[in-house]
Amino acid sequence: MSQNSKISLSVNNWVNQVLGAAKHNVPAAQASAYAPSNIALSKYWGKREASFNLPVTSSLSISLAKHGTNTGLSVIDALAHQVILNGEEVDATGNFAIKVTQWLDRVLPRNLKLRIDTVNTVPTAAGLASSASGFAALTLATNSLMGWQLTKRQLSALARLGSGSASRSLWHGFVKWQAGEQADGSDSVAFPLQQQWPQLKMGLLTISSQTKAVSSREGMARTIATSPLYKQWPQQAELDLAVIEAAIEANDFETMAKTAEHNAMSMHATMSAAWPPLVYWQPESLTQMQKVWQLREQGLPLYLTMDAGPNLKLLFEAKHQTDVEAAFAEVQIISPFGTTC
Amino acid sequence: MSQNSKISLSVNNWVNQVLGAAKHNVPAAQASAYAPSNIALSKYWGKREASFNLPVTSSLSISLAKHGTNTGLSVIDALAHQVILNGEEVDATGNFAIKVTQWLDRVLPRNLKLRIDTVNTVPTAAGLASSASGFAALTLATNSLMGWQLTKRQLSALARLGSGSASRSLWHGFVKWQAGEQADGSDSVAFPLQQQWPQLKMGLLTISSQTKAVSSREGMARTIATSPLYKQWPQQAELDLAVIEAAIEANDFETMAKTAEHNAMSMHATMSAAWPPLVYWQPESLTQMQKVWQLREQGLPLYLTMDAGPNLKLLFEAKHQTDVEAAFAEVQIISPFGTTC
Repeated sequence: MSQNSKISLSVNNWVNQVLGAAKHNVPAAQASAYAPSNIALSKYWGKREASFNLPVTSSLSISLAKHGTNTGLSVIDALAHQVILNGEEVDATGNFAIKVTQWLDRVLPRNLKLRIDTVNTVPTAAGLASSASGFAALTLATNSLMGWQLTKRQLSALARLGSGSASRSLWHGFVKWQAGEQADGSDSVAFPLQQQWPQLKMGLLTISSQTKAVSSREGMARTIATSPLYKQWPQQAELDLAVIEAAIEANDFETMAKTAEHNAMSMHATMSAAWPPLVYWQPESLTQMQKVWQLREQGLPLYLTMDAGPNLKLLFEAKHQTDVEAAFAEVQIISPFGTTC
Repeated sequence: MSQNSKISLSVNNWVNQVLGAAKHNVPAAQASAYAPSNIALSKYWGKREASFNLPVTSSLSISLAKHGTNTGLSVIDALAHQVILNGEEVDATGNFAIKVTQWLDRVLPRNLKLRIDTVNTVPTAAGLASSASGFAALTLATNSLMGWQLTKRQLSALARLGSGSASRSLWHGFVKWQAGEQADGSDSVAFPLQQQWPQLKMGLLTISSQTKAVSSREGMARTIATSPLYKQWPQQAELDLAVIEAAIEANDFETMAKTAEHNAMSMHATMSAAWPPLVYWQPESLTQMQKVWQLREQGLPLYLTMDAGPNLKLLFEAKHQTDVEAAFAEVQIISPFGTTC
């Protein structure tokens, strides 16, 4: 049996075991759930096992409060699931519908078909990790619909099967996803950190909300296969995470934000050293990045992070919000620990 | 004695020994020399010893034929050297005059003062390595003026003391600079490869000819000190060089050019993973890079390389020159093995 087949068997056994032990009420007619999107401060870049999103390294994120996904589920009398995204039924043969359907078919009785109504409050596939909040909300809603009453830890592992970073979107605030070691992925789960930082603000600079040409999944695979510099990444990522976690505990904004920017720049560096070169930045991204660096040189404690896409996320403290808004007319401010935005 | 002082003594001993053994005629009244600029296909990025430009890795370049530096020297009756750059006397306290003067004071009798007339046919400090051709021409002209009759190997080591990549600018065509191992730098010298590739063309896309904000010297130092990904660079650089050297021998353009682009992208990746991030690209650089990648996806065998600056150098074969000129209105074509441009 190949290594891949062994892992596949192992993960499936774990899923069957967890769901077999779960409470099984009659499915409700409908259920819904919300999950926030999240932005990694220490990135997830690289899978040690691709089919089940088992990561090379641990990662740490901040959730985006009201920016995420609402998912409604209702049982339908049909031969196939029906997937609605932002109010429009999506092509059943498209990437999104296939991923959702595969996830549901792994956890539901085969004869149970659902209408899945997904509403994102962030641009789809624009580097705001809508797949993270999407699969987290789907997992929570399914748990509710089926009456499983699983633990958050178990739900985190199930959400991860849909999208790696979804494992982190089950909580608000700072969340750490530990890489884990088990072949069945049962310890590759996230948990929330206790620290609250109401003064932390994030600024979104959307350069493009188009779906990116190279998916994160494909980008990670290409980077691992062809980027010699990636060999150094796991070590840096684990170190960055430790520094960021300690900075969060110490309430040290500058160390946290500086390390997050360095981590993001290094992740993009591993990509541009891949072959063919993988550069998610657009010219306008670079213009905005240079503006951030210029403002910082002038004394503004402003930092950036970027995911596998062209958009920037600014990190700063509430007391500098006026300066940031003055410098970036188009910035959209998010308060990760707030309730209003 | 510190490690630095030991190396300094060792290098100075070597210089004194070489010049002591050289023929010493009465200096001529004047002398002049030309040296071509060069573009590394496998980059020099990182010094194992900063004061004498001893590199971490070997590198390999292609010289730019008629694009380089003419340097004229004449003995003057004065207390200080007089440095003329492109027809204008430069400030004696500026970076350029200081570097030239320091180099001359290392090799000349103290009472001998020169007028140095340097004319670059490439933009100064715009990533076209004018310091390489500048110090190579200065070295050749000084050898001629002083009647030293040193070997090219010895001159390569002397040129390196002014600027690392100057060690490669003493020859036309493909040139390899071996890193060397000796503390006195006597084996850190370049030599020409025999292969001639008349079909090889280079296209210059000048995004900016302004002096860059962070010098290569400073950029290398920052990268080594702060970029975790740099730890992987020496290994990749040595491997890339071996692949490029073999491809040149095999007359395999695609492998040579692909590896050169991958090498340059990886070098820039080590920089953008430094702290603070070091990004020499400008938004317009990225626009042109994306255009190269798009044309290549469409089937044109076109590759790029970039030094520590915003400008692109395209690599292609003569048979595709019309396509390249059609796609890039502003491109300046160079024939490294030609005599006319």
